[in-house]
Amino acid sequence: MKIGVLGTGMVGCTIASKLVALGHDVMMGSRTADNVSATSWAKTVGARGTVGTFADAAAFGELVFNCTRGANSLAALSAAGAANLEGKIVVDVANALTSQGSGSESLGEQIQKAFPRTKVVKALNTMNCELMVSPSKLPESHTLFISGDDAEAKTRVRELLRAFGWTDMMDLGDIATARATEGYLPLWSSIWRQLGTLSFNIKVVR
Amino acid sequence: MKIGVLGTGMVGCTIASKLVALGHDVMMGSRTADNVSATSWAKTVGARGTVGTFADAAAFGELVFNCTRGANSLAALSAAGAANLEGKIVVDVANALTSQGSGSESLGEQIQKAFPRTKVVKALNTMNCELMVSPSKLPESHTLFISGDDAEAKTRVRELLRAFGWTDMMDLGDIATARATEGYLPLWSSIWRQLGTLSFNIKVVR
Repeated sequence: MKIGVLGTGMVGCTIASKLVALGHDVMMGSRTADNVSATSWAKTVGARGTVGTFADAAAFGELVFNCTRGANSLAALSAAGAANLEGKIVVDVANALTSQGSGSESLGEQIQKAFPRTKVVKALNTMNCELMVSPSKLPESHTLFISGDDAEAKTRVRELLRAFGWTDMMDLGDIATARATEGYLPLWSSIWRQLGTLSFNIKVVR
Repeated sequence: MKIGVLGTGMVGCTIASKLVALGHDVMMGSRTADNVSATSWAKTVGARGTVGTFADAAAFGELVFNCTRGANSLAALSAAGAANLEGKIVVDVANALTSQGSGSESLGEQIQKAFPRTKVVKALNTMNCELMVSPSKLPESHTLFISGDDAEAKTRVRELLRAFGWTDMMDLGDIATARATEGYLPLWSSIWRQLGTLSFNIKVVR
């Protein structure tokens, strides 16, 4: 599949590399087409990896990952352009990283509201990027949460993430449930500080 | 040990019954000494269970559980009286259940600030009360989080909770980390709605 990855940070590079390894064609998008992180990334993955602006990557992808920083995501998606995202799935991996609480609208909801003709699926925002793409790095199964309004879009994202190695994927419901997973961030941070490693995730034991 | 349990709801009754079963003497406190829930509870547990006002229960207990509703907790503890709680451990089980987010002060912090001579330990606020007192009801180990400023108080609470059956107890740090566990509530609610059962908890897989 052709996939656009918005964002050139560690999350974007890790997900983009995984997608290429799985045989997808990936264009990494950023504010400028000559972004240094993006071009360095492209050199590491060969011909299946290309580089462009946010708009280029959104136009290229049949599906788009939002891996920009939460504070910049709406601006990045706006630069990507509603027309380039129309009818497509946006997998929103970002966290707002602000103090907005469970009563506020989540970033996932804000993106869905700003791009009503795009199918926003919140996923992968509750663990470190190494685990996002290689969940088997932990010694036992752990849980991935998915939120989104469009059932078919969630099914397609689940299929993609199954290829990442995910087995325990829990659909929490519509995009409003992104508040729940975005609101988990303070607990994630506290556990991280306590364990001194990013290599952990939570498992829903039932 | 003599233990005061503030609150006569399901959480208070479940914890108080477990404490009696473990051989502790428990006084359940509420606004009035003749509270119907409390007197019915006392009948079920025999001589080790007694009933009184919030102040009676706080004065009675060497250690006190706050099992009141989060919205009422500060008022209940105020009625219990700072003098009756002085130097004692208060295990704060309550959740605010409001839309206050991770940027706001947690209930645990508010109680610690209001009662500076009391040792507040936040614990047990991330799962249903049946699991609080019987963690082995789930088929595998799962995690309990503890927050508090006083290390010795946390050690004593861990010992008490070990008797409940807890093995995986994670100390997150000072009482400010209660924001993290209180902020988990929306995710807990979403998982509950999705699973259709209260019989679940998260495990930190590492």
